Amino acid sequence: MPLSTQPYKGARDFYPEDKRLQDYMFGVMRKVAKRFGYAEYDAPVLEPLELYKAKSGQEIVNEQTYNFVDRGGREVAIRPEMTPTVSRMVAARRQELAYPLRWFSIPNLWRYERPQRGRLREHWQLNVDIFGVAGVAADHEIIMVADSLLKEFGADAGMYEIRLNSRKLVDCVLRDHLSIDEEKSLALTKLIDRMHKMDRQKFSEEVGQLLSGSPEDTVKQVLQLLEGKSIEDLPEPLLTTGQADELRQLIKLLEDSGVSNARLDISLMRGFDYYTDIVFEVYDTDPANNRSMFGGGRYDGLVGLFGVEPVPTVGFGMGDVTLHNFLEGHNLLPDLASATDLHLLTVGNVYDGASRLAQVLREQEVNVAVDATDRKLDKKIKSAEKQGARLIAVVGEEEISSGKVVLKDLTTGQQDSFSPQDLVSFLKDYRKR
Amino acid sequence: MPLSTQPYKGARDFYPEDKRLQDYMFGVMRKVAKRFGYAEYDAPVLEPLELYKAKSGQEIVNEQTYNFVDRGGREVAIRPEMTPTVSRMVAARRQELAYPLRWFSIPNLWRYERPQRGRLREHWQLNVDIFGVAGVAADHEIIMVADSLLKEFGADAGMYEIRLNSRKLVDCVLRDHLSIDEEKSLALTKLIDRMHKMDRQKFSEEVGQLLSGSPEDTVKQVLQLLEGKSIEDLPEPLLTTGQADELRQLIKLLEDSGVSNARLDISLMRGFDYYTDIVFEVYDTDPANNRSMFGGGRYDGLVGLFGVEPVPTVGFGMGDVTLHNFLEGHNLLPDLASATDLHLLTVGNVYDGASRLAQVLREQEVNVAVDATDRKLDKKIKSAEKQGARLIAVVGEEEISSGKVVLKDLTTGQQDSFSPQDLVSFLKDYRKR
Repeated sequence: MPLSTQPYKGARDFYPEDKRLQDYMFGVMRKVAKRFGYAEYDAPVLEPLELYKAKSGQEIVNEQTYNFVDRGGREVAIRPEMTPTVSRMVAARRQELAYPLRWFSIPNLWRYERPQRGRLREHWQLNVDIFGVAGVAADHEIIMVADSLLKEFGADAGMYEIRLNSRKLVDCVLRDHLSIDEEKSLALTKLIDRMHKMDRQKFSEEVGQLLSGSPEDTVKQVLQLLEGKSIEDLPEPLLTTGQADELRQLIKLLEDSGVSNARLDISLMRGFDYYTDIVFEVYDTDPANNRSMFGGGRYDGLVGLFGVEPVPTVGFGMGDVTLHNFLEGHNLLPDLASATDLHLLTVGNVYDGASRLAQVLREQEVNVAVDATDRKLDKKIKSAEKQGARLIAVVGEEEISSGKVVLKDLTTGQQDSFSPQDLVSFLKDYRKR
Repeated sequence: MPLSTQPYKGARDFYPEDKRLQDYMFGVMRKVAKRFGYAEYDAPVLEPLELYKAKSGQEIVNEQTYNFVDRGGREVAIRPEMTPTVSRMVAARRQELAYPLRWFSIPNLWRYERPQRGRLREHWQLNVDIFGVAGVAADHEIIMVADSLLKEFGADAGMYEIRLNSRKLVDCVLRDHLSIDEEKSLALTKLIDRMHKMDRQKFSEEVGQLLSGSPEDTVKQVLQLLEGKSIEDLPEPLLTTGQADELRQLIKLLEDSGVSNARLDISLMRGFDYYTDIVFEVYDTDPANNRSMFGGGRYDGLVGLFGVEPVPTVGFGMGDVTLHNFLEGHNLLPDLASATDLHLLTVGNVYDGASRLAQVLREQEVNVAVDATDRKLDKKIKSAEKQGARLIAVVGEEEISSGKVVLKDLTTGQQDSFSPQDLVSFLKDYRKR
């Protein structure tokens, strides 16, 4: 039986047209991250499994991680997320590194889950993290990077919404304000995390069950609280807490930077166990795709797990699959041309000469493909067209000896004769069109 | 016990200074591949294990592959090489693709082996392949890409040597000229493949054992043959074979393109089972590192394994670890500056204003990092220096309100005052230094 030509389930082959789009997306990510002073890092796709056992959350480690025992008996995992890795790397050089430390990466990550819209088994994720800044300036900067990214992709503020919450504020609400004990509070946050995937009625019932034994109106208070759309919707005693103040300050900083689509969402939990304070998520406002695209937050405790002094940290991760869906849904994906400037098609037995002509052009930074197969010329032209060629030149003995070539623009049909020198400048100008 | 900060054995963390170097190396690879009309592709790092069972060679599959059974019961491997993957992708679209098809990729690959100089468990490898060209023009082009790459990295022809061989020529020598049967011929090629890692005496003995039963001078003839340094050293009857002609033609084409450091090496076998004709390897001539750096060849049979019409193919793979050793050994590694153009260091409670000043600069494509921590100014300057900053500006209330900043060049100590507009053009010019 012949071998299958399919890629592994839930993962993608990137043919040149797909790779070009990925390059464009990663290029914008890199450009924007560098604008804010972030430097790129990377790490192995295999990590010790124990790295994720500490803080990634039960579901990820027990059900979704690709893990196995290597030939030397080590328990390893294909990384499901980058945050534990970057924390490990910072911890390894805790003393030598200079703060504020700004790092980004675009790793590929793997999770064993049922492939569906917006979620595949392999995806790439931009990770942006700032280490060493305890105050709200770091949260502001990280959200600004995320916002600038979307704007650089051509999005406007109406296409997405930034929702903010604070783990500390949630603790304050549940434990201090509603007097729910620690265990039940934790269970309730997990339930709220799943709220938007559940039927409303079912959610209310489950909250009721969970809080059975609490005063009668606690359930009502919880449900009401989750309806709030801004800080000022919080119950009176919470309005003056440090957590509410911090969120207010963050929203003010964002507004001063021209970001007006950020608001509190007290139901925002995020799945990972390691977040410690402010968290955020960016939602697509398109009714056809009204879901969380990506998010992040503060995780001050992770570097300290490696036996070094903790470092305050804020970061976010933006996946390529959800970003692609967003850009597609809002018509923001660009048309991208092939990088090949010119296709030289030979006539006759002139490979040696055509190859030297191509070499001269390449030395002047022109991208040239040569078709010296012995097919008929019309077949060669069709092949070039299929590869996205815009400019072709047919070269035979005459062109080789004279050095003059006739360029044909396949998009217009126009033909012009060029000397080698004029050819280079024409081709470089053409590239910018 | 705290978690370990070490990366997985035989794999590397890329801190920003390492990643910068990797970016430089990959950037040159991409530039040169595109010059020849090659388009980038990619594929998942996990593949079905069966993909490698067919043709990669026993040692790789049985001893060196990272393979495991996934949660759905599938046998999967972390790719040890890219050639089976690219063949799979071409086979999947055999009919729709246009030829000559030129593709390249820079995948990360994994092999379980003892980490040593030039060989790690994870490495990256540039793969360049041309599909659909049966003649020697394809072999010439692929070797030209390899040669142009090394030259683009700053190497000159004295630093490396290109060794060529032909599997068909070897068959011709062993089976037709020396009348060694098929089974023994295959065993002999495997032995010759290990020849340069063995003691000379031991090698001769093993050849003798293998050929026991053959006419007495066969062993002598084999050993003599392996001494040859050019096509004209071949025994008389082999000089007029099609294989010798093809190699001569290839060497002539390379010479016409200015590549004079290519020669026959009849002992060159390359490990993979899938090569069918001409193969090549590039050797570092540095006596301290006189080893094969990378290579490739023709493998016309691989696409056909997927149940489609075969496609003639030539390609090569160049690993980042051996390339790095080569560039380092010949002093060809460049100094690479941080991408951050300016570090703004705040004095006083001016984060909001400093962040807006940074925003204005970023909108004009300047890369700006802000340090608004409440440390003393000299600490902030030291941090910036440690991060490779060349230009800093201290901003307090006065600078924010006037819009004028004083730039300090940390490399010279010079200070100058700038208006926001002059600042942008100065910073962009400075970047080019």
